[in-house]
Amino acid sequence: MPKLDLQSIQQVNRTGYPSPFDREVAGRWYRRLAPPSGLTDFGVSHVVLKPGAWSSQRHWHNGEDEFLVMIEGEAVLVEDEGRTLLRPGDCAAWPKGSTNGHHLRNESDQDCAFIVVGGGTSTGGGYSDVDMIFTADGKYAHKDGTPYPEAKRS
Amino acid sequence: MPKLDLQSIQQVNRTGYPSPFDREVAGRWYRRLAPPSGLTDFGVSHVVLKPGAWSSQRHWHNGEDEFLVMIEGEAVLVEDEGRTLLRPGDCAAWPKGSTNGHHLRNESDQDCAFIVVGGGTSTGGGYSDVDMIFTADGKYAHKDGTPYPEAKRS
Repeated sequence: MPKLDLQSIQQVNRTGYPSPFDREVAGRWYRRLAPPSGLTDFGVSHVVLKPGAWSSQRHWHNGEDEFLVMIEGEAVLVEDEGRTLLRPGDCAAWPKGSTNGHHLRNESDQDCAFIVVGGGTSTGGGYSDVDMIFTADGKYAHKDGTPYPEAKRS
Repeated sequence: MPKLDLQSIQQVNRTGYPSPFDREVAGRWYRRLAPPSGLTDFGVSHVVLKPGAWSSQRHWHNGEDEFLVMIEGEAVLVEDEGRTLLRPGDCAAWPKGSTNGHHLRNESDQDCAFIVVGGGTSTGGGYSDVDMIFTADGKYAHKDGTPYPEAKRS
């Protein structure tokens, strides 16, 4: 049945972020929904943020549109212009190439959850608040291009 | 701000379905979210179904992946295998080319709402329960290819 059995899809909190940028996403638990569904036109993730967790470092994508809808709890969207509270049913969209970095922070005392959709093919992107970029092949580097050591993926 | 102001985005219930197939979708009120957001990698709609309304005739897409997440209320997903109740946070996915037609019916006495994402470029599709197909350029025809008269778009 095309209704997804979320519980049967592996939920992980792994990240390739180098230390210490990995700390804020340790409480980000996500499921990749497209591969088990057979979808290839876009990526979809179901993401749970534990209290205190961030969705990512504040970032943008050079070549991929991004869309998010909150489905449970509350999170604060942080962008260049400031902070916006997101509640269930709230939607946000980031067209590719905008360098207005964004992320969500769960500042509440309960889990929150959202669905995020990403299109296109990765061409890398940047981070607003830390000395980091990500490359088209998913590696992390300083803004001057020097690679970070790769995180262990255990 | 990338949080979308849904109330500022036009909500419509128009359809190109020929009569009488338009009747079941008269209570389907939708907003196209990608154009006002500047997204081009995929399409996104915010859809409200009034009590009794269907999301569409039961259909499939030949060449576009589709993903849905419920955000409010309840609806019944109908497919070849039967009926599945969808509640807020439930997700469903339909890979392109599967001819297992699907739609949602609001059989409750309250509005329901969902977000649906569609990828790729339209290459048409089919309907499971009525004598109709849709073409790559968005026109409706009988299964033998004879076009239906085009609906007035007022």
